[in-house]
Formats: sequence, C-alpha cells, structure tokens
Amino acid sequence: MHRFFLVGLSLLFVVEHGAAQHAGIFITQEEAAEIRDALGKYELLDNAVALAKGTLEEAFSQPIEAPLPGEAGGYEHERHKQNYREMRYAGLLYSITGEERYAAFVRDMLEEYAVLYPTLGPHPLARNQKPGKIFHQTLNEEVWLVHTSIAYDCIYEWLSEEERARFETHIFRPMAEWFSVRNKEEFNRIHNHGTWAVAAVGMIAYVMGDRTLVEKALHGTELDGEGGFLAQLDLLFSPDGYYMEGPYYIRYALMPFFYFAEAVHRMQPEAGIYDYRDRILRKAHYSAVQTAFPNGIFPPINDASRTMDVAAPEVILANALTYGQYGADESLLGIARIQDRVILNGSGLEVARDYAALDAPPDMNWPSIEFTDGHDGEQGGLGILRMGGGQDESMLLMKYGVHGGGHGHFDKLHFIFFDQGREVINDYGFGRWINVEPKFGGRYLPENDSYAMQTIAHNTVVVDGLTQNLGDGNAAEETSGQRHFFDSEGAQVKVMSARADTHYEGVGMQRTMLLVKQDRLPYPVVIDLFRLESDEIRQYDYPFHYSGQLVTSSLDFQTHTGALQPLGEDSGYQHIWETARAATDETIRFTWLDGHRYYSIISAGMPDTEVLSGRTGANDPNFNLRAEPVLIVRQHGQDHLFASVIEPHGYFNEARERSVQARSLIEQVRVAGHDDRASVIEIEDANGLFWRVMVNNGPPSGTTEHNVSFGGKTYVWTGNFKVEFIDESAEPSDE
Amino acid sequence: MHRFFLVGLSLLFVVEHGAAQHAGIFITQEEAAEIRDALGKYELLDNAVALAKGTLEEAFSQPIEAPLPGEAGGYEHERHKQNYREMRYAGLLYSITGEERYAAFVRDMLEEYAVLYPTLGPHPLARNQKPGKIFHQTLNEEVWLVHTSIAYDCIYEWLSEEERARFETHIFRPMAEWFSVRNKEEFNRIHNHGTWAVAAVGMIAYVMGDRTLVEKALHGTELDGEGGFLAQLDLLFSPDGYYMEGPYYIRYALMPFFYFAEAVHRMQPEAGIYDYRDRILRKAHYSAVQTAFPNGIFPPINDASRTMDVAAPEVILANALTYGQYGADESLLGIARIQDRVILNGSGLEVARDYAALDAPPDMNWPSIEFTDGHDGEQGGLGILRMGGGQDESMLLMKYGVHGGGHGHFDKLHFIFFDQGREVINDYGFGRWINVEPKFGGRYLPENDSYAMQTIAHNTVVVDGLTQNLGDGNAAEETSGQRHFFDSEGAQVKVMSARADTHYEGVGMQRTMLLVKQDRLPYPVVIDLFRLESDEIRQYDYPFHYSGQLVTSSLDFQTHTGALQPLGEDSGYQHIWETARAATDETIRFTWLDGHRYYSIISAGMPDTEVLSGRTGANDPNFNLRAEPVLIVRQHGQDHLFASVIEPHGYFNEARERSVQARSLIEQVRVAGHDDRASVIEIEDANGLFWRVMVNNGPPSGTTEHNVSFGGKTYVWTGNFKVEFIDESAEPSDE
Repeated sequence: MHRFFLVGLSLLFVVEHGAAQHAGIFITQEEAAEIRDALGKYELLDNAVALAKGTLEEAFSQPIEAPLPGEAGGYEHERHKQNYREMRYAGLLYSITGEERYAAFVRDMLEEYAVLYPTLGPHPLARNQKPGKIFHQTLNEEVWLVHTSIAYDCIYEWLSEEERARFETHIFRPMAEWFSVRNKEEFNRIHNHGTWAVAAVGMIAYVMGDRTLVEKALHGTELDGEGGFLAQLDLLFSPDGYYMEGPYYIRYALMPFFYFAEAVHRMQPEAGIYDYRDRILRKAHYSAVQTAFPNGIFPPINDASRTMDVAAPEVILANALTYGQYGADESLLGIARIQDRVILNGSGLEVARDYAALDAPPDMNWPSIEFTDGHDGEQGGLGILRMGGGQDESMLLMKYGVHGGGHGHFDKLHFIFFDQGREVINDYGFGRWINVEPKFGGRYLPENDSYAMQTIAHNTVVVDGLTQNLGDGNAAEETSGQRHFFDSEGAQVKVMSARADTHYEGVGMQRTMLLVKQDRLPYPVVIDLFRLESDEIRQYDYPFHYSGQLVTSSLDFQTHTGALQPLGEDSGYQHIWETARAATDETIRFTWLDGHRYYSIISAGMPDTEVLSGRTGANDPNFNLRAEPVLIVRQHGQDHLFASVIEPHGYFNEARERSVQARSLIEQVRVAGHDDRASVIEIEDANGLFWRVMVNNGPPSGTTEHNVSFGGKTYVWTGNFKVEFIDESAEPSDE
Repeated sequence: MHRFFLVGLSLLFVVEHGAAQHAGIFITQEEAAEIRDALGKYELLDNAVALAKGTLEEAFSQPIEAPLPGEAGGYEHERHKQNYREMRYAGLLYSITGEERYAAFVRDMLEEYAVLYPTLGPHPLARNQKPGKIFHQTLNEEVWLVHTSIAYDCIYEWLSEEERARFETHIFRPMAEWFSVRNKEEFNRIHNHGTWAVAAVGMIAYVMGDRTLVEKALHGTELDGEGGFLAQLDLLFSPDGYYMEGPYYIRYALMPFFYFAEAVHRMQPEAGIYDYRDRILRKAHYSAVQTAFPNGIFPPINDASRTMDVAAPEVILANALTYGQYGADESLLGIARIQDRVILNGSGLEVARDYAALDAPPDMNWPSIEFTDGHDGEQGGLGILRMGGGQDESMLLMKYGVHGGGHGHFDKLHFIFFDQGREVINDYGFGRWINVEPKFGGRYLPENDSYAMQTIAHNTVVVDGLTQNLGDGNAAEETSGQRHFFDSEGAQVKVMSARADTHYEGVGMQRTMLLVKQDRLPYPVVIDLFRLESDEIRQYDYPFHYSGQLVTSSLDFQTHTGALQPLGEDSGYQHIWETARAATDETIRFTWLDGHRYYSIISAGMPDTEVLSGRTGANDPNFNLRAEPVLIVRQHGQDHLFASVIEPHGYFNEARERSVQARSLIEQVRVAGHDDRASVIEIEDANGLFWRVMVNNGPPSGTTEHNVSFGGKTYVWTGNFKVEFIDESAEPSDE
C-alpha cells in the first residue's frame, strides 16, 4: 500500500489555485467567508476569534521584533515563538476579515526575518539537540515554519512578487534546505521530530508550489519511503492508533500530523490521506483522547507533564479536523467543551455550530478500552478500565506495552488509579520544569534519568532493587510487556491482566487488576494481584505512590524522627528519604487522606514482610524533585503473590469540619493460593462482606473450566476470572 | 450602661405570643408565609430550601436514632450532630410549609431524647474538656440545644401539653441546669464556650417562657454582670469588633452571638441588643469578614484551619442578620455570592431578594484596614493592606495584637502575604486534623503545641532560637504588640508598622511592612523592614514559610543530599529537617514557583549571614505534620535590620508549557542605615529602577520632619515614611 500510494501521489500532484485564492493549505476563501458570516452566533468560534484578535491587538501595541537568537526559555526564544503564533493568527484574520493591517503585519514580520535569517549560523547553545538557527534546536524552528507557512499562504496573493521572492530566497528555501538536507537524518527519522520536519517542509513546499520538496516530505529525502510522512503514519502508531511514546507525546505530535494531513488533503484530495492505513489519523486522535482522565488531563505515561490536557492547542486542532473529516461524534463535542474554542477553518466552524445546537453541554465519556502497542499491535498494550461517569469517574490504567523510545520509562506493569478528579495512585511524570529557563534551561533534568525513569518511581514491583532491563534503554526497546486478557464487559467487575517476563532476567511477572463496584461499598475499589516467579530468592518491592496525609495504619511504624537516610544507593532509591519502617506478618492496612476522600490499601499479610515509608528529595542538590510520599511493601521469596485492595471511602471537608468513615471497611485480604494455573484470594470486612477472587494464570481463554485446589480447598470457575460476592452478614451493616 | 441595661431588661421582660405563634425566637409566622410566597423566585433562597428539604428527605429514609454517646468524631457523635441539624431544618420547614410530617419528625426525635437523656451521666470520654452527657464535652451539647431550641419553638404550638411537659422535664430543664448550675464556671466564662452556654440556655428559656433563666443567660448566674451575654459583648471584642482569638474562632462564635442576639431582639426589642456597645455585633461581623482573603478564606491566625471561609454556616447566619438589622450593604451581598444560600427567616429572604435584584454578581471588596485589639482597643492590633481587587487582589496582613487565649500563637509581628488567590507566604494554621477520628480523635495534636504555636512556625524573627515569652501562655497573655503607624491612603504605597518589645527580654523589635505598586513591576511587591535592638549579641532567625518549588537562588547552597537532621532540639526547630545551608555576605535572592507565578525574596546582604532551608516533618512519629518548606535567614548581632523585598513576577503554565520571566527584576536591597530614629534602605534592578525607602522609627507622627544621616549621606522627609521612586534608566526596560 505504501509503495502504491507513493506512485499515486507522484502522478496526481497538481497545484491549483484561482486568482485571489492561493494554495489554501488550511483555510479557503469560502471557509473564511462562512466564518465571517457566523461571527456572533457560536460561542466557541467567537472565543477563537476573540483570542486571535486579542493576540494581534497586543502585538500591534508593540514594535515588531525578530531578535538575535537566545537561550531556550529566555526572552528571545519566547519572542520568536510568539512571533509565529502572531503571524498565523494574522494570516487567518486577514482571510476572515479582509483587513489589510493583518496582512501587513505578517509581511512586516517576514521582512525582519528576511534580514535576520541569512546572517545566522547554527545556534551555539544547542547541547544534545540538532541546532536550529533562530532557535537552539531545529525542532522549534520546524514548528516556526509550520505556523508561518499558513500565514504566508493566507497573504500570498496580497504580497508583491518581489516580496514573495525575497521571503522565499532569504527564509523559506534555506530553511527547508537546513531541515531536509543539512539535517537529513532527523528529517527521515521515524520520530515526532521527523514529523515536524516533514510537515514544515511539506507545507511550505505546497505554498511555494515546489513539487519535489513535497515528495521528499511525503516519502523521505531518497523518495524510497524509508522516511517521510507516510512511513511515520505506518510506524509511529499501533494498528489501534496508539502512539508508542504515550499520550503526552502523541498530543505534541498530533499537530504536525494533522496540519500536514490537512494540507495534503486540500492540495491532493485524491490521495485520500485521511483514509490512509485504515484511517490511522482518526485512530490516533481517538487513542490519544480516550486515554485522558475524566478531567481531560492526559495520563503522564513515560516522560510527560502531569498537567497536559485535551485543551492543548494540538488537540484543539486534531479534534476539529477529526470531527470535520470523520463525521460528527458527540464525544468530540465533549472535548470541545473543555477546549472552549475551535480552530479557524471550516472544521472549526462545524464543531462550533454543532456544539451550539446541543441542548446540554456534552460530557467526554469514554468506554473502558485496551490499546495494542507496537506498529504491528503485537507488543503488549495499554489497558484502561472506567466505572461511573463525569468528573467522579473511577479510572484504572495499566501499562504493558513497548518501552517508548528515548522518552520511555522502565515501568512495565505500572498502574495509575484516578478517582475523585485526581490521580490517587499517581505517576511522577517527567523530571523537568518545562521552559523554566533557570531550571536547567527548561530541559529534562538529570533527575529525569536518575529518578523519574527508574522502576521504583512507578507503581510496579522492583526486583532486587534494580531497574527493569537494568536501565538499559536499548535492551528495553527490544522487548515489551504482553497482554494476557482484558474484559470490560461486566457492570460490576472489569479486569485486565498482563505479563512482563523479559524485564528481569529469570523472573516472570503477571499483574491482574480489577475494578469492582458492589453495593456495600460506596465507590469502586481496585483489586490487584501481582504474581512473581523466580528460580532464586529475590527481593520484591511493591510500591504505591500516593498524595496526601497518612491518617492511620495497622502497622507499628518505627518513624525516623531524628535523622533521615536515603532508601538506597542507586536505581532511583537514592532519591527517596526513608521516613519510617515497619515489620509485620499480618494484613497491612494503610489509610491516607487525599482531597475530600479517604483511601486505604489493604494488602495480604505474609511472614517477614517489611513496609517502608519514603519521601522523594534525597540526593537532589538543586531541589529539582518534588517531595512526595511513597509506601513500599518489601518481601523476599521466589514465587510470590502481592494481593491488595485499594478502597476509597468516607468524606472529609476541612472547611465544613465534616469527616465520615475515616477507616476502611475492608479489613482482610488473604491469599488462598497461587501457582502457574491460577491465583485465588479472599477479601473480608468486619460485617460479613466476603469476596472471593479467582484468576486464570494460564493461557487466556474465556471458556476454559478451571478447577484448582489450594490448602485442601477446591475452586471451580469458567473463563479468565471470577469474583464471588458472598454476603455473610444476617443484615446489612448499619454503617 | 451595663448595669442600666440589666435593670431595663428585668422590668421590660414580657413573653408575648398569639394563638398559633409561639415565641418566634428565629422566625415568625409572617416571615414563614413570606418565604412560602417567595419560593421559586430567588436563587439563594431556593438553594437554602432545597438543602433543608434534601436533608429531611434523607432523614426520612432512615430510622430516627438517638444512640448511646460515643467518642468524638465517631458515628454516635456525628449522629447526634446530624440530629440537631435535621431538627432545626424540620422546625423551619414546618413553619414555612405547614406540612405536619416535619413537625412530627421533631417530636419523634425529641421523644427519643426524652428517653435517653435522663439515663445519662457525665460522658466518660471527656479528656481535658467539661463533659456533656450526649457528647464528650458540654460545648457540643450547648450547640445541640441552640439548634433544638429553634426547632422546639417552631413546633411548640403543634405539640400537646403533655409532650411539651415531657420534653421540658426530661431534656430541656435538666440540660439547662447542667449548663448553668453544674457547669457554672464555664457558663460565666468570658470565652466562646461561655457564649454557647448562655445562648443555649437563653434561647430555650425564651421558648419555655422562663424569665429567671433568661436573666442568668444575659447577666451571669449571679445576675451581677460578671458573666453572661452582655459581659461577653463587652469583653470579647475590641472596640473595633475584632475578636482576640482571631477570625477562625470569631467565625465559630458568630453563631451563638447572632442566634441569641436575634432571639433577644425578637423577644425584647426594646432592649436594643443590636445597638449594644455602639453596635458591637455589626462590628464583630464586619471585622470577621473584612479579614478574609479575596477568595473568602479566613486567615489562619492562631489555632485555625487553613480552609475555613465565609461560606461557613455561622457566617451565613451572621451575614443575613447583619444585613437585615444594620441595613443593606452590597459588600454583604458579595459574601452571599460566595455563600450561595441564605438563612430561612426574614433577613435571609431580604438578602436573597436584594441579591436577585442586582444586575451583576457583586464582589467582596474590602478596604485596607487596621483593627485594634484588646477589649479596650489599646493592645496592639491587626493590620491588613490590600491592593487591586477581585480574585487577584494582593493582601498583606501583620499581627501585632494580644496573644489570643488558649488558642493563641507566639507570633507577634508575624505576617501573611496573599497573592494570585493563594497564601504565598503562609501561616501553618493549627496542628489538627479536625474531626478525623483516627488522628487523635480529631482534637488538637501534640504537634499543635510543639510546632504550630511556636514562633519559628511563623513569619517573624526568632531570637536565640527561643519562642516568644519562652512559650509561656500566661506571660504572653499579659502583654501584646503595639501599633506604631498605619497608613493605607496612598494608591502606590500602603504601609503599617508595629512593635513588640515585651516578647523577648532585652530585645526591642519593630517591623514596618509596605505594599508597593509601581508601573515598572507587574504586581505589587512587599517591602519588609524588621529591626531588632539588643544589649547583647543575639541570634536572629528571619523565616519565610512558602509553598512550591525552588527555581533559582543567588546562594551557593550546600544541599544535604545524603542525610537529614533536625534544625534544632526545641522551640519547634526539632520539627524542621534542615535540607540545605548557605553562607553569604551579599544580597540574597531566592526564587520559587507557586501556582502560575514566580516569587522572589531579595534580602539585603550582611557579613556572616547564614541561610537555612528546611522542611517540616522531623520528630513527628505519627505523621501529624504536613511537609512544607521554609527559608530562614540567620544573623548574629545586637542592633540589626532585616530588609527584604518579596517580588511576584512572571507566569508559568505547565499545561500550556509557557514560562516567562522566571527571574526577579529586583536584584539588590541595601541598608543605607538604621537607628532608633529611622531606617533607610535602597532597592535596585539591573535596568535603572531605584527606590529609596525611609521609615520613621521614633514616635509616630504624620507631620514631623525627619533629617537623618547615614554613611555621610543625609535623608530628609516628612511623616512616618517616604518611598522615592527614582528612575535611573534613560528609557524604559525592554522586558
């Protein structure tokens, strides 16, 4: 298909434009006129136009400036970024309003760059990055060109021939050459940086009418399809549209993918770019937004900010184009509600109009879903279980796919539990203060490698105090987790199970996580069965990263009151202060307060269990880490099953001085038995609640009948799992 | 006046009520009818009725229960609290709707108590508190009776004579006797517990028609005016209405003060209770709400929650009664906007109606204000400077009044800086997880005494590592801070100055704080001049309690990467881990990120300055403390001036990946000189900003001409202070 498409495109390429309509890579004159007529009618459109006009009013009040390049995050860097935003808005506003001051603004700005750009060499402050000229890395410069291409297209016909020639000679052609010739490797790389490069070059090529450049952007500099846009569509996404680097990076990549796809679609509609690879762009957008927490924030998987959300400009773009290209879907309007504005073209208008026609603001309600990972869909995946809806939806996410490239974390079988509008069991995210120039230039910090990427920074078992694949990214890239089963059909029980057998040599790991709602408990609870097998005695550390304040515990903690030491010397442990330690043979109960709700971990007791309490911040000379608590259950053994429940309970409102049910209802979790066929655990409260959870550890099958015996007792069920709810109380608890 | 009033009341006391209208201590039949007619018209009223009805629907769905008493914060405790809430709502709803099921609910509940109460002795779980019978302390039981009195009044005429006799004999009379005879000391005490006692007894006495009991409630058990409601109105407030325990406790006390005042007003209008002591109740309400941060939260002065706000039920009550009694004030409607509902009587209706008539929702905008402290107004005070308005108002508060009784903190000259909708330089608040039963029964924790009350927990200088008045509450009660001057007239410069000379033996302290807005800086900045005088060499610790993440500093911090030790052994220092230490002779610059804004402290350099970075949490065996950072500037000397600027700057939005101006503009703060006549400092940025701040340290006077020389230079100004803005740049900075 790939090769065929290449040929097709080459034959069909024709630049068409009328008198005053130039290429129209993002908006046509007809769309601009429709938007002009719609002003004042649709809130989301009006918000977008108001933002654009406000940005330009601010810009008009200051002198136009294209300063000499500066350091990342510094004034000059930010000025150049603001310049391309302003140019894009000005171009669009010229199309929509016809006011020449907007066109003149773009021209005057480009005149500045036409003087500046030819004087520049490679930026001296690039460190590990490929240098740009205006910016310290080519990446930012490619982004500059993507936006500026749209602005240039909008005012192309308004410019004189001399002006166009000057801009193309002094800015656009040398810039495109810098990207595609001098930085050919990056241009051909299957990576989001490559996507920005091909989008930038391809978009300006359409506007300049340079057919050769377009082809390079689509098929790679050698036109062999090893690089270029189509190869990226083939390889960067799993067949489900899941992007191996995770939601934070797909969010970023959505912009060049959709900007360039939209340009291809408009300039070569016959190429069917939106249908390419079984509509992979639709899947890419859905797979990104369907991972989002109920509040719209993306789960911080791999290197990722903890606050990036669906209101990001990239998602505003992708959401409208998906809506426009693939048909109306009310869930996309639910995203638009969070975004509160639209893009300024025909698709944006369509979203704004349809949104305004709704009787009530739509919610962004997604189903439980599993995404396969790897470009072939065979390299594990990402499972998401959801219960409830709206802002108080419970969401459980487990990661068992590929490593995720240079931004990957060593965290297979890691989970996040989201409840009450917040990450209750959380992911640390990246070690980075993004764009905060005094914080290491806003770049990834050393602590991103030494802590945030390490296994102990995640909610998955650490074997022998070491990071998965010994922290070797290449080794991690060569393997992945494996899905075992995923079943979200049940209203009361949803379950996912996965394995990671190639991350610690000689150790097999299976994690089965359930989200369970039963009437006797007010909120869905998490049940976790993490099973390890090994030929030797190992140390297993089973961590929970939480937020908030310890309320009570069954443990007799020896708190370190007078001195603190780090938990270890390497693999991320050196960054955690040990705040307390306990030993127990009994069921562990640990309750904390987070926001307006209490949470308890109830974990099955085993002889010689140690429990460690920690807080990040050790060996952090520049105060780069956040100070956050962690609880670690430590066990030594060969085959071992960690079995736990996470129970949300009660209510606390300090301002109203209300506290109810600060103690968990569930009191006991017991392991009845586990082996390579099955695991069976039992869960009890003090009032007769009794649940039995049975899980298939063998080859997955929904129909196999299981009959296993542990401790002289036989357990029988059919399929991958069964949860028996046995009420042993005569009458309901009065609590 | 007090004596006269006593006689007047005694002569004029008459209980009047018509056929179906009983006493009407909170609502009359006419008001109830007006509310009935107004339903569906005014949002705030509808919200209140919906809450009342919702509470009762929930109550109807469960059996009525008056359980045997339990521990504080436990189920039984919460049940009894919920019972009085439900009874009060049911009584009011019966008045408003006439539906007998509401009256029957109150009766049925009282029947339960009529059986239970006579069987009870003093509660066995009272610890340091006076025991109640239903609750562990009389305080909760008095609250129960305040609410229940209203319910009883509302259904009085609906009850049979036998029922009334049973309730009064088995509940109300013995309860009133328990409060006023068995707990006579508490009843006569000038303290908010005493207020609850007299309100409870006085209100039920009005409903029962017991004139003698009413008099005791008004004038004390001995009728000598040494105790009772009027003595409390005389002594608990400063002449400005400021309440010595601070806003959190006045918030709590507003309820018995206003409930009882309203009852007195309705039953004996000729007594003029709302005019008493120059309208002290009006002042009490205003002084409480005028301390509030722009988001409605009360400053956590003394023992106080960090989240209590003007939407508390007590303030909903006081706000409406103040509005109804003292006349319409749009600022009170601004409070009603935050409260989102009203009380159910005529005053509540008036607020709801006037609020609905406004064109736009009003803001709660308060002026800068100084409150005198002490019942005579001569014991220092509380200064509040405000600039801007709405949610992004800047507010600077300094505390220089009385100790504040058993809930007082040793924190004279302590300040709070509120900006960007948050406490930027904050107060720790109380050491308490209120009503969280597993956290020490929800009571004040040992760490409240050992940390939260100590001087080092506040933003004021600690001398020789010791707490003010050596932590002796009695000694602290005998003295107070003293106001020096307060001037909030200037649009660009607002200033307050105060002294504390009796808190460390042999040490005089004066703090002058300015809030300054100049065009070259985007936000108001704080300027702080903290001057100390001593005959001996002392250690001065000058702390800033902040929130957020260190971004950059001029200091060469030696960070404790491998082990942490507490900062000291006592006076609260034992609870702070020392995380880093630096030494400098130069100006200190320290920048952190809090929310969407950066903040810098720029503090004048002095030879041999040490700077300590810490985090709370040491010697905290039960994880009772929050882990929060603090910066401490340490100096040894006799006479010393700490001179600093707190500069808010820039913008950070992680989700949008925007960061601007992460470094402060101000670079230097220099002390030109200081002595007992004056202090002069100079402030500079790198681009020509130059401010000179001159402060009078001698007797305050707005007209005195000052002429002082430091370092061979003479400074001349008139009045208590002058800030000279000298722009040394040729043209404006381009930043």
